[in-house]
Amino acid sequence: MARIVMKFGGTSLADLDRIRNVAWRVKREADAGHQIAVVVSAMAGQTNQLVDWTNQLSPLHDPREYDVVVASGEQVTSGLLAIALQTIGVKARSWQGWQIPLVSRGAHGKARIDRIETEALADGLGRGEVAVVSGFQGMMPDRRIATLGRGGSDTSAVALAAALHAERCDIYTDVDGVYTCDPRIVAKARKLDKITYEEMLELASLGAKVLQTRSVELAMNHGVRLRVLSSFADGPGTLVVDEAEIVEKEVVSGIAYSRDEAKITLARVADRPGVAAAIFGPLADASVNVDMIVQNVSEDGKTTDLTFTVTKADFDRAVKVIEDNRKILAYSELKPDPRVVKVSVIGVGMRSHAGVALTMFRTLADKGINIQVISTSEIKISVLIDEEYLELALRALHSAYGLDAA
Amino acid sequence: MARIVMKFGGTSLADLDRIRNVAWRVKREADAGHQIAVVVSAMAGQTNQLVDWTNQLSPLHDPREYDVVVASGEQVTSGLLAIALQTIGVKARSWQGWQIPLVSRGAHGKARIDRIETEALADGLGRGEVAVVSGFQGMMPDRRIATLGRGGSDTSAVALAAALHAERCDIYTDVDGVYTCDPRIVAKARKLDKITYEEMLELASLGAKVLQTRSVELAMNHGVRLRVLSSFADGPGTLVVDEAEIVEKEVVSGIAYSRDEAKITLARVADRPGVAAAIFGPLADASVNVDMIVQNVSEDGKTTDLTFTVTKADFDRAVKVIEDNRKILAYSELKPDPRVVKVSVIGVGMRSHAGVALTMFRTLADKGINIQVISTSEIKISVLIDEEYLELALRALHSAYGLDAA
Repeated sequence: MARIVMKFGGTSLADLDRIRNVAWRVKREADAGHQIAVVVSAMAGQTNQLVDWTNQLSPLHDPREYDVVVASGEQVTSGLLAIALQTIGVKARSWQGWQIPLVSRGAHGKARIDRIETEALADGLGRGEVAVVSGFQGMMPDRRIATLGRGGSDTSAVALAAALHAERCDIYTDVDGVYTCDPRIVAKARKLDKITYEEMLELASLGAKVLQTRSVELAMNHGVRLRVLSSFADGPGTLVVDEAEIVEKEVVSGIAYSRDEAKITLARVADRPGVAAAIFGPLADASVNVDMIVQNVSEDGKTTDLTFTVTKADFDRAVKVIEDNRKILAYSELKPDPRVVKVSVIGVGMRSHAGVALTMFRTLADKGINIQVISTSEIKISVLIDEEYLELALRALHSAYGLDAA
Repeated sequence: MARIVMKFGGTSLADLDRIRNVAWRVKREADAGHQIAVVVSAMAGQTNQLVDWTNQLSPLHDPREYDVVVASGEQVTSGLLAIALQTIGVKARSWQGWQIPLVSRGAHGKARIDRIETEALADGLGRGEVAVVSGFQGMMPDRRIATLGRGGSDTSAVALAAALHAERCDIYTDVDGVYTCDPRIVAKARKLDKITYEEMLELASLGAKVLQTRSVELAMNHGVRLRVLSSFADGPGTLVVDEAEIVEKEVVSGIAYSRDEAKITLARVADRPGVAAAIFGPLADASVNVDMIVQNVSEDGKTTDLTFTVTKADFDRAVKVIEDNRKILAYSELKPDPRVVKVSVIGVGMRSHAGVALTMFRTLADKGINIQVISTSEIKISVLIDEEYLELALRALHSAYGLDAA
C-alpha cells in the first residue's frame, strides 16, 4: 500500500464524461489499496473565461479579487469529481485550499506555497477516503484566497506529494509521456521511459509544455518521483527521477525547440568596458528578459557586433528601449529579427562525453543551416537558427544523436 | 449616515454590463455616506448549470459536494463586483461565507443560518469599505461549505441586515416593486408603496415570486425594514414594514394566484370518525403536501365527498397513493383534476372589515365562475376555480376591491 498523488489537467476534466473517466482511473488506484490524493485543475477554458472577465472589468484589477474569481474553477471540478467518485463506490471528499489549509505567501495571482497542513487530509486518507484537492489555490495568512499563477496545479500536486511523503506524483495530461522530440514534427520521436529532473527542467524551460518548470524544480528539491502519463490511454508514461536512478545515461535524451525567440543585433557598438551594462541595464529596467547573448571579437579593436535574444512578447519593447538609447549606445545599425527559433539538445550524459556539440554543428552544417547564436550549459546546447529550417534541423539532429525509433 | 444591505439577484448580475450597472447603484449609496454591505447571487443561469452537472453525475449526489460546486457561482460574482466597484473608485472587498464566517446548521443544500460573526465585516464597513458578500452560502461547524437552498440569497441579505443592525435591506430585482396583482395579467395593477410583512408573506407563499417566503419571515421576526426595487430603473420600490407603520390600512392590498395546484375529489367516502386520518396519513407518508381541504356535509348520513389540493409536482404521486388505498378508503369514485388555479385576496384590513369574502363570492358569481374550494385565514381568502377563468377572475376582483389604477 502506497500513498499516491494524481494530478489531472483541464483537458482531462473538460466535461462530465471526462470527469467520469478520471474517476475510473482514480478508482483503479484506490482499488489497488493505495491512499490517493487527487489534484484537479479547472475545466478546460473555464480559467480563461474567468480571467477574461476580470480583465474586461479592469486591466488593473485587484489581484486579491482576481484570485477569488479564478479559484472558483477548481472548486467546481473538485466537487464534481468527488461526486463522480462516490457514484462508482469510491469514498471521496473535496478540499479547497483554505480547508486543508494550504497556506501561501507572496503576491496574489502568483502566490507561492508556504506550507501545507496535512493533518486533516491525512486523517481522511487513513479512513480510505480519496482527497480531491482543488489545485492552483491556497489561502494567505489573512484568510484570503490566493492562486499560484498559471499552471500552478502541477506545483500544487508536487508540493502535496512532498508534504504527504507520497511515493509518487502522477501528472495525467493529454500526451502519454515525455518524448525525445515533438512527435508532431519528428515522426520517429520516441517516448522516454525515464528522464532526470535536470533534463526535464531544461526541456520544460526550453519549450516542452508537458510540465511546469516550477513543479519540476520543487520535485527535484524534495525528491518527489514524478510520472507523466495520459488520462486518455493506458501506459506507463515517463518517470522523472534522480540521476542516480538511471543506470545507462543517454548522451542526448531529447531535443527541444522554442518559437518564442526574437533576435536583436547591434552593429558596430563601441568595444569598451561598460558597454554591456549600458545596453542591458535599460532592458532590465523595462522588464525585458534577455536570453542568449553573443558578442563577437572586435575586428578593428574599436567596435564590435552584439546579438541577444528576447521573447517575442518583449520584442517590440526591447527594440524601442534600444532605439531610445541610441545616443548612449552609439551603434551604427540596429538589426531586429523575429524570424528565428531556438533548438536545444539536452542530456545529462553530455557531462562525460566529448563531441556532442561538434555533432550538432556538423549536422546542421551538412544541411546548410547557419547557426546564428550558440549558448551552452552543463547538460544542454542551444543554437539559434532561421525559423524556416526548424523541422529540417530537428529531424536531422534526432537521427544524428541516434534517437530515432527503430 | 446609515448602514444598508443591498441585495442583487442573478438577473441583475447576468453579464459584465449589468455588474457595472450594479456597481454604479452601490456607488450612489456609498457616496451618500452610508455603510454598505452588498449580497450577490450567481449570474443568471449559472446556478442552474452547476445544479444540472451534479444531477447528471448522480441524482443521488452527496449534498456536501453539491454545495461545493453550486456555491462557486456566488464566489465569481462577489469577486467581479468588488473589481467593478474598485474600478469606479469605491473601496470594496469580497467575502465568502466561510470568511465572514456565516455559520450554518441543518442539512447541506438547504442549510439554515445559525449565526453571523459580524466583527471582521463591521471593521471593513467602518473603514469605508463596501462588503461584497456571496449570498446563498455559509460554512458548517466542520468547516465545509453549505448552501441555504434555492433563493437563499434573499435570506442571506435579511439575516445580514439583522446581524449588522442595518437600517434597511434593499432587495434589487427585475421588477420595480410589489404590485396589487400580476401586471402581465391585470393591466390596471398598481405598485404598492408599502405593504405589511404579513401581507408580503401571504403574497410570497401564494405565488408572487418577488421575495422568498423565508426571507420575509426572517425580516418580520427581526424587524428588518425590507425594500423591493428595480436594478434597472430608478424609483422608490415597495417598502415591507410592520403593520404599525401603515396608518391607512387597505382592506385588500393585493390579489395573488397560483397555477401550481391540482385538485383531487373522493366521492362517497364513508362518513365516520378516522376517515380523514386514513386518507391523509398515507399521503403524508409519501411526502405529499396537502394544501386546501374541504369536506361536504353528509347528505345521507353515511357517505360524504372529500376534496383536497396538492402541488402539480405531487399530483401523480398523490393519485397513486389514493388508488393504492382504495380498499381501506372505500370511496365510490376518484376524480383527479389538475386544471385548477388558486386565487387569493390578501389584506390586513380584513381583520376589521366584514363583507370582504362576500364581495369575492358575489364578484365571481356575477362572472359565472364556479368556486370549487374555499380556504381562509385571518388576512386572506383563497378560492379554487377552473384554470380557464384565471384572467377574468383576477381582473374582476381587482376592480371589485377598488385596486385599479386611476
